[in-house]
Amino acid sequence: MTSAPDAQIDATGRLRHLLTLDGLPRATLEALLDRAQAMADAGEVNARLAGIAVCTLFFEPSTRTRLSFQRATQRLGANVLGFDASTSSTTKGETALDTFRNIEAMGVRGFVVRHSDDGAVAALASAAAPDTALINAGDGRSAHPTQGLLDMLTLRQAKGTDFSGLKVVIVGDVRHSRVARSDLHALRTLGAGEIRVCGPASLLPDAALLSGCTVSHDLDAALEGVDAVMMLRLQRERMAEGLVDSLEDYHRDYGLDARRLRRAAGDAVVLHPGPMNRGVEIDDDVADGPQSLILRQVANGVAARMAVLETLLG
Amino acid sequence: MTSAPDAQIDATGRLRHLLTLDGLPRATLEALLDRAQAMADAGEVNARLAGIAVCTLFFEPSTRTRLSFQRATQRLGANVLGFDASTSSTTKGETALDTFRNIEAMGVRGFVVRHSDDGAVAALASAAAPDTALINAGDGRSAHPTQGLLDMLTLRQAKGTDFSGLKVVIVGDVRHSRVARSDLHALRTLGAGEIRVCGPASLLPDAALLSGCTVSHDLDAALEGVDAVMMLRLQRERMAEGLVDSLEDYHRDYGLDARRLRRAAGDAVVLHPGPMNRGVEIDDDVADGPQSLILRQVANGVAARMAVLETLLG
Amino acid sequence: MTSAPDAQIDATGRLRHLLTLDGLPRATLEALLDRAQAMADAGEVNARLAGIAVCTLFFEPSTRTRLSFQRATQRLGANVLGFDASTSSTTKGETALDTFRNIEAMGVRGFVVRHSDDGAVAALASAAAPDTALINAGDGRSAHPTQGLLDMLTLRQAKGTDFSGLKVVIVGDVRHSRVARSDLHALRTLGAGEIRVCGPASLLPDAALLSGCTVSHDLDAALEGVDAVMMLRLQRERMAEGLVDSLEDYHRDYGLDARRLRRAAGDAVVLHPGPMNRGVEIDDDVADGPQSLILRQVANGVAARMAVLETLLG
Repeated sequence: MTSAPDAQIDATGRLRHLLTLDGLPRATLEALLDRAQAMADAGEVNARLAGIAVCTLFFEPSTRTRLSFQRATQRLGANVLGFDASTSSTTKGETALDTFRNIEAMGVRGFVVRHSDDGAVAALASAAAPDTALINAGDGRSAHPTQGLLDMLTLRQAKGTDFSGLKVVIVGDVRHSRVARSDLHALRTLGAGEIRVCGPASLLPDAALLSGCTVSHDLDAALEGVDAVMMLRLQRERMAEGLVDSLEDYHRDYGLDARRLRRAAGDAVVLHPGPMNRGVEIDDDVADGPQSLILRQVANGVAARMAVLETLLG
Repeated sequence: MTSAPDAQIDATGRLRHLLTLDGLPRATLEALLDRAQAMADAGEVNARLAGIAVCTLFFEPSTRTRLSFQRATQRLGANVLGFDASTSSTTKGETALDTFRNIEAMGVRGFVVRHSDDGAVAALASAAAPDTALINAGDGRSAHPTQGLLDMLTLRQAKGTDFSGLKVVIVGDVRHSRVARSDLHALRTLGAGEIRVCGPASLLPDAALLSGCTVSHDLDAALEGVDAVMMLRLQRERMAEGLVDSLEDYHRDYGLDARRLRRAAGDAVVLHPGPMNRGVEIDDDVADGPQSLILRQVANGVAARMAVLETLLG
Repeated sequence: MTSAPDAQIDATGRLRHLLTLDGLPRATLEALLDRAQAMADAGEVNARLAGIAVCTLFFEPSTRTRLSFQRATQRLGANVLGFDASTSSTTKGETALDTFRNIEAMGVRGFVVRHSDDGAVAALASAAAPDTALINAGDGRSAHPTQGLLDMLTLRQAKGTDFSGLKVVIVGDVRHSRVARSDLHALRTLGAGEIRVCGPASLLPDAALLSGCTVSHDLDAALEGVDAVMMLRLQRERMAEGLVDSLEDYHRDYGLDARRLRRAAGDAVVLHPGPMNRGVEIDDDVADGPQSLILRQVANGVAARMAVLETLLG
């Protein structure tokens, strides 16, 4: 089962859950981005969700994403309940669905869910009560929609809201990346001028996912003239799986350093979802350089998540 | 040491701690239930405990009970401090009493304590300062009084406040269950018409605990005409201990399914403290069926815990 | 790298971070203590830091220190975000600096940091944005400044603010203790009349650290006539390292019991930073006796941390 686009929008067109950016109407996507920008500009706390409880229900650990949602929830005046199923000994063999239903029965209205299985968050959403909202914080390789949102917000701030002239390259392990999928969906919906995808053949997905993209295995060529470089994290276990020969080889062929970045447009920006493997997919001179928007992405993450929480629960 | 009933009520008759339902005066028990019902009806947040801190001090892990208390505390406007002694490496050999006294010295006024030893919570309560209140969230096999409260609240909502005509059966591992003990204490105090207890001989307690109960090893017979079925969770380690032959055998003899449930009264209700072992002590057709109040129990848990926190700390 | 005193005070003399008590001007130290005393007297919550987020960033676990800072943060109306790097699987090889910068980018303004490396907190502070404040919650053996503050606050309450006539002995594993270092720095700055240090030679530091102190290996002699005894915790791993022969020997030579304490002044007070090894460095008759200020220290810890948080972030 994969995230079903139509499961997140109700009959009246209202966004009930945020499960994926795949198929999300452009107007809905742009409204979320506008709201996120307003949150980023305001940079303050409010009490719009006072009295509401949001549970971070993580079946796969991710401290950074959890903290970002937690801060977003706090800034809206709501209460956070944390459930880390990956370390909890108390699920005691209970199904994810029973765990979810239980916490929902406690009066929790918002759920931020991460799960290692594709479609797991959509499956929980299909069982949710009418006033319960789920946000997919990453399911398998399928989707990480708030990462896609914060990436688009970051691109907009740097390059303007009209993406029609924008040349973007996504570099690295696209095959296993939910971040790449959500970025691809959003870039297409927002009408990005050119989307390039670059990585070793072993880390690129089936052609269906790359429809409309220019595919390359040569990073130098792929960087030529782009306005934005979206780097992906290399999971070190890819080496054990034989998909990457060595970290050194990967760095030589697909690592981004300042020298290589000169092939891109002079005002090109660099994004990375973190955590970074410095010296593997990205070098310090880029990560900490003037074209890096990596910490701006993190700041935008809180604003984007506030916009989603407010839209779904407000 | 076991939970001493008189340790929780002071000389003026005021409830200082909630350690057990054993010996709790009927008026006190009913006042808690009335207050819990009011909390359930209101279904909202307030600030009655604003500025107060409540620590969930768990020497034995239980995410669900902890979350329920956490939500109850948040809904009363108090702050939560979490201490998970089962994963904390910082107790560093410190005694439970020193840990408790330390957190108490930080100005924390409420403690929700779970411990694997019978009487451990009462022992801490006997060392507490005059304005510190302890709530037993489960100690050994002795007591789980807020579970007893939420179960009674659930029965009241379904069957009315007069229990004199009520026929109840408690099914499963009564011997090791603090839930069963608290339910038995409350049902007796509230004057339940008939209390049946059903399970394999290896999982039933000494006769003293069952005074006034009808004991049976035959579930079909025990279900005959009852108004409420209170299922208990089977701990899987009972098999290793030789108390249960196999999960299949247990399911065949003591598992509740829809067919069996037809022996009960037509409007009989089913309770389970969770987490459920689906296919062992309970089948999906009952757990998710129209007679199940299992998620209602969870919702009532927050209301019951709010009532206790407000009564002790308000 | 060690904590650089001048890194915590800006060009205008304002305290930006609290990294160490080493070199902290007496006026600054006394202002913090006065403010902490006011916090202890008020004993209530306020909203001076409402809307601000404080992250407890622990690269080394310490539940008690974390809870104390958490309560202090709550009492000032700020939000707490917890990051336990020792159990987090999500740092995924990320550097401490990247982790810090990431959480900072989420809009978090205060950081309470514990790390096993000397100088690690100062290193992060040197990378902080202008309005970000760091509090050292213990780095290696270097410093634990809020423990030093709460110890001085406790001594002041017992003995008055003029330390010129005060005779203090610090007993135990001074070599490995950041608590001892922060206490020594503060006692010297506040002009303590006489500072004695007592422990086995294997657990005493280089002479440079003990400048101005009277050093002794004989506890009975060191206790003679002192006004305050500051006990240190014995790390049990010192035995494995061959620095201590056995816990029994250590107890015989350096354990404090009521009999030994009679050598001190009649109104001498006893402090211990906790958690205590009862029966090793301290006996029950002292720990729970009338001269013990150990729980008072814990209470003062919240007040001292409130004073620091308010001073840095208010």
